[in-house]
Amino acid sequence: MTPVIIGFMPTKDPRKQMIRSTALLIRERGVEGTSFADVIEHSGAPRGSIYHHFPEGKPELIEEATRFGSEYIARMLSKDISTREPRSVVRRFAQSWRGLLKDGGFAAGCPLVAVAVDGSHMKAAREAAGDGFERWVDLLTDSFAERGVDRRRARSVATLVISSVEGAIVLARAEQSIAPLDRVTKELDLVVESMLDQSA
Amino acid sequence: MTPVIIGFMPTKDPRKQMIRSTALLIRERGVEGTSFADVIEHSGAPRGSIYHHFPEGKPELIEEATRFGSEYIARMLSKDISTREPRSVVRRFAQSWRGLLKDGGFAAGCPLVAVAVDGSHMKAAREAAGDGFERWVDLLTDSFAERGVDRRRARSVATLVISSVEGAIVLARAEQSIAPLDRVTKELDLVVESMLDQSA
Repeated sequence: MTPVIIGFMPTKDPRKQMIRSTALLIRERGVEGTSFADVIEHSGAPRGSIYHHFPEGKPELIEEATRFGSEYIARMLSKDISTREPRSVVRRFAQSWRGLLKDGGFAAGCPLVAVAVDGSHMKAAREAAGDGFERWVDLLTDSFAERGVDRRRARSVATLVISSVEGAIVLARAEQSIAPLDRVTKELDLVVESMLDQSA
Repeated sequence: MTPVIIGFMPTKDPRKQMIRSTALLIRERGVEGTSFADVIEHSGAPRGSIYHHFPEGKPELIEEATRFGSEYIARMLSKDISTREPRSVVRRFAQSWRGLLKDGGFAAGCPLVAVAVDGSHMKAAREAAGDGFERWVDLLTDSFAERGVDRRRARSVATLVISSVEGAIVLARAEQSIAPLDRVTKELDLVVESMLDQSA
């Protein structure tokens, strides 16, 4: 089964629902293109409740949405890492984004990328995005190192995996084509295979 | 000498200057975060002149800025390809972004990425970003194929190069650290080296 990241499960907790709606919206429209009104409409929350739940306003909401998206992927990665071979983990990481792009008509990308690209003036949110990327890289690094790969090399390849998949998502959205992500997935498979062979 | 992409040369042509200002601004603030007022202030253009030069308004300006950024990098790549080995071309492509990130305090990234991430509702601009990425990939593909690499593999590795450098720029901005780009640059060097060895 291919892991799916397109739809975060809805929740009845209004604060959590606003966070999920924000994560869904910024990955399509960016941070500046997502207004409080959009979040209220998408989440179905009462109009006055946003400042009740997020007293510091939009920067707080964006930060929470970034942490939510980051944690969501980290859990998916951790689960795969605990049960699968590194090549399969990397392939499934790329495939999960493939599903989002194809099913969503290339409208949505990664919420962390949105924050880094057009929300970097919100310092706490930007730091949350940086923490998220580092966490994903750390998870892959550990999983490679456990197979005997030198830690420095493991981190280097883990960074290539996260960077190239994130970059390929951007290319795929611009070109409205899955081809860039498929090509990158194939090359990453060769890189991970050769890394493991060298450490065997 | 490391190629430098941080400062597009100023010009006295007001239309061109507005396009350059827009490219500089969107790579820092995104498309939605860049207003006409920002472009007027940055370019020093007279207030009323923007609709004179861009009768279709902001989407036209963003499209032109995307084409300008795309062409700027394509020229830099072409020049390097005509005089250097593939490994050096790839290293310098990454290094040019390294210079932008370090000199600009991680404030600015790639204007094409901005358009793909938060400007994708502007269809012509998004297509210009897609054309730009494809052109860079084509240039690298041709240069690898000229060294005897199978065209399909050449395109695959070229896509990995552009995607992973673009992704690493995003990670570097989020983490305010050059480490992700440096790690990716090192891995790409190994990939290109192994691709060339296999075709020798």
